[in-house]
Amino acid sequence: MNGSTLSVTEQGVTYPKGFRASGVASGIKRSLRPDLALLVSDREASAAGVFTTNRIRAAPVLLTEEILARQGGMSRGVVVVSGVANALTGPEGYADSARVIELAEQALGASHGSLLHAATGVIGPRIPLPAIERHIGAAVEALAPTREGGFRAASAILTTDTTTKEAAVAVKLADGTRVRVAGMAKGSGMIAPSLAPPHATTLAFLSTDAKVDSEDLQTVLNQEADRTFNMVSVDGDTSTNDTVLLFANGAAGGCSAGKDPAFVRAVGAVLEQLAKAVARDGEGATKMLTVHVAGAEDAAEARSAAKAIARSVLVKTALFGADPNVGRIACALGYSGARFDASRLRVDLREKGNRWPLIQNGTPVPGLDNGMGHRLHALLRRMDEVVLEVELGNGVADATAWGCDLSYGYVHINAHYRT
Amino acid sequence: MNGSTLSVTEQGVTYPKGFRASGVASGIKRSLRPDLALLVSDREASAAGVFTTNRIRAAPVLLTEEILARQGGMSRGVVVVSGVANALTGPEGYADSARVIELAEQALGASHGSLLHAATGVIGPRIPLPAIERHIGAAVEALAPTREGGFRAASAILTTDTTTKEAAVAVKLADGTRVRVAGMAKGSGMIAPSLAPPHATTLAFLSTDAKVDSEDLQTVLNQEADRTFNMVSVDGDTSTNDTVLLFANGAAGGCSAGKDPAFVRAVGAVLEQLAKAVARDGEGATKMLTVHVAGAEDAAEARSAAKAIARSVLVKTALFGADPNVGRIACALGYSGARFDASRLRVDLREKGNRWPLIQNGTPVPGLDNGMGHRLHALLRRMDEVVLEVELGNGVADATAWGCDLSYGYVHINAHYRT
Repeated sequence: MNGSTLSVTEQGVTYPKGFRASGVASGIKRSLRPDLALLVSDREASAAGVFTTNRIRAAPVLLTEEILARQGGMSRGVVVVSGVANALTGPEGYADSARVIELAEQALGASHGSLLHAATGVIGPRIPLPAIERHIGAAVEALAPTREGGFRAASAILTTDTTTKEAAVAVKLADGTRVRVAGMAKGSGMIAPSLAPPHATTLAFLSTDAKVDSEDLQTVLNQEADRTFNMVSVDGDTSTNDTVLLFANGAAGGCSAGKDPAFVRAVGAVLEQLAKAVARDGEGATKMLTVHVAGAEDAAEARSAAKAIARSVLVKTALFGADPNVGRIACALGYSGARFDASRLRVDLREKGNRWPLIQNGTPVPGLDNGMGHRLHALLRRMDEVVLEVELGNGVADATAWGCDLSYGYVHINAHYRT
Repeated sequence: MNGSTLSVTEQGVTYPKGFRASGVASGIKRSLRPDLALLVSDREASAAGVFTTNRIRAAPVLLTEEILARQGGMSRGVVVVSGVANALTGPEGYADSARVIELAEQALGASHGSLLHAATGVIGPRIPLPAIERHIGAAVEALAPTREGGFRAASAILTTDTTTKEAAVAVKLADGTRVRVAGMAKGSGMIAPSLAPPHATTLAFLSTDAKVDSEDLQTVLNQEADRTFNMVSVDGDTSTNDTVLLFANGAAGGCSAGKDPAFVRAVGAVLEQLAKAVARDGEGATKMLTVHVAGAEDAAEARSAAKAIARSVLVKTALFGADPNVGRIACALGYSGARFDASRLRVDLREKGNRWPLIQNGTPVPGLDNGMGHRLHALLRRMDEVVLEVELGNGVADATAWGCDLSYGYVHINAHYRT
């Protein structure tokens, strides 16, 4: 089910047929960067969503879950606000978000219940409704089925992100139909997905022109989001606003794709690409970290072990310093909850085709304090993607987690910027 | 059972009768700072220990647990090495630690099984035995029942710590006997105790001249270490070497103190003082953080909620920036697993006699974006101890956790120093 063999391009959410998107600046962000995004299907689409497990859930999360249930998993699209999370805002915040949806539906000429909603930004402040009222018309007018429309939407959902995150793939189904799956995401800090289905992380919006009923769509999203977005950790803080939505409008025709392995693989490939983009763009990150754990007793332990390393603050700072500190990796494995015999532990550093052993039979390779340590330090310094491969020697389950280093930049951003 | 009403002084482990201590430089630390410590009771003492829950346990932890069990909880003291953790060193590391104990027992003229052992420092490298062989004699000769002896031992167990950590208290038992309890600790990074009894964190060694059998002693240590050391978080990484040992030699005479509330309170007061000293000396810390959570459904949820805030990287960086970022506090509570109704949540910042509300009825106090926010920023900037009080409004259980901020200094220390 690994989608990495598919050719993923950087097309955006307008790549599948029958989707339009836009992004405009409403003035919520003082920087006047775009902060109001729309993703709309020309026809009604099946929709599926996974949401944060945080007990404090932002108003847009509460509303979107309600609407999805009430509309039986059918939707026209989503209106996204960035700059304010609209979390911790009580009943007033809930009413604000309902009004944002209403304004978007009116401007679009769509019926009540057509649109979903997400937000990201500072927790606490309310959405400035006059800004939305003034600019929602422009956002609807700007809706375009073009690459540019998708890019503008991908730009308008960002906060501390330094780049847009888009991914797209086309696959041929068993019945010969060619379908497209695409997505956009944001996420840079407060990233530690905790999404037992139906729960998720960060913001990501996917579109596909495959024909899939909403029940199958939810099953595919649960499974693939759990394998991808749920395995990303930037800082270990699970947000109040995490939302992943997937819209399938059937514009490609053909038979139902809900159980087609090629479709599942395509959704997985887009989610994985976006999840990795979130890890790579972690606040202040200078290196991306991929941790692959094999030989675990079961999938849950493989996941725990991989995530423990990817989210360890000590591993992250060592990575920033290009320090081949194998003790911290072993330490994180030790408290991860995964069962293993320390004397069989193996950890390798992989760089393209090369493999550098770090721990063999439970002990660090010789020379980490001098010659070998210096070579690995030099190697780590020039890597911007570090891959660790762990073999627990206790079974056959495996898992992959993604993260990044923890730099002075991370401290700077989070000591002096409100998220 | 809160010991804060007791008068805790900065005397060290030699404050109780019948204990001697020393610390010398053996050359393990390249800085030539002291790295070999002894704490010895003149007579055989009851001993209790709590140890790390990390699956990878350093050789000294394995050995000390074995010896404690084999000797039926009786011991003369402990030999501590700092600079190397002797973790991830396999059977050779285990033999090294057994040899360290043997060398110390021979130099002391004590029988096999008399001493326990702990170590802290870099994971991976082995203990340089020749250094111990050369200097253990000097360490035994330097043993002194004085304040200076205790201080030298407290110095010799440090790694990235910036200060020694000592605490002592004297109490009168129900039978009129005056007993003393004292302790020393080290800990600055890789601090996130995970100690379901009989498990613990960081290094701490306590001495008392009270008469207590080893079973009662273990019960008291389990309970009080869980309330104190287990509630400290510097970076969320649970070490491979965490060890807390408590020796009771009965030199004060009197009846058994094992169930005397005054004794329990004294042990708790010393542990709490040491635990707070570890939090205050967190790597790179500029501010100490105390989080008190009340109104939880049960003790476990109160503890989870308090620890989630104290260990949140986003709360820690906001604290470093003196940013009154209430959203991050609420976010951490939301993913802590504690149950509460967000609309009843209350969070206060306390400064000495003053109380500043941050969140009331689940919403941030007005003005955090401007006037009130600026006042709180100025207030936080000059505080070096920040106290947050959380009321969940869901029950009567409470808990306290301790932590510190996350600064550029933390990143510097951990990117460029091996622990």
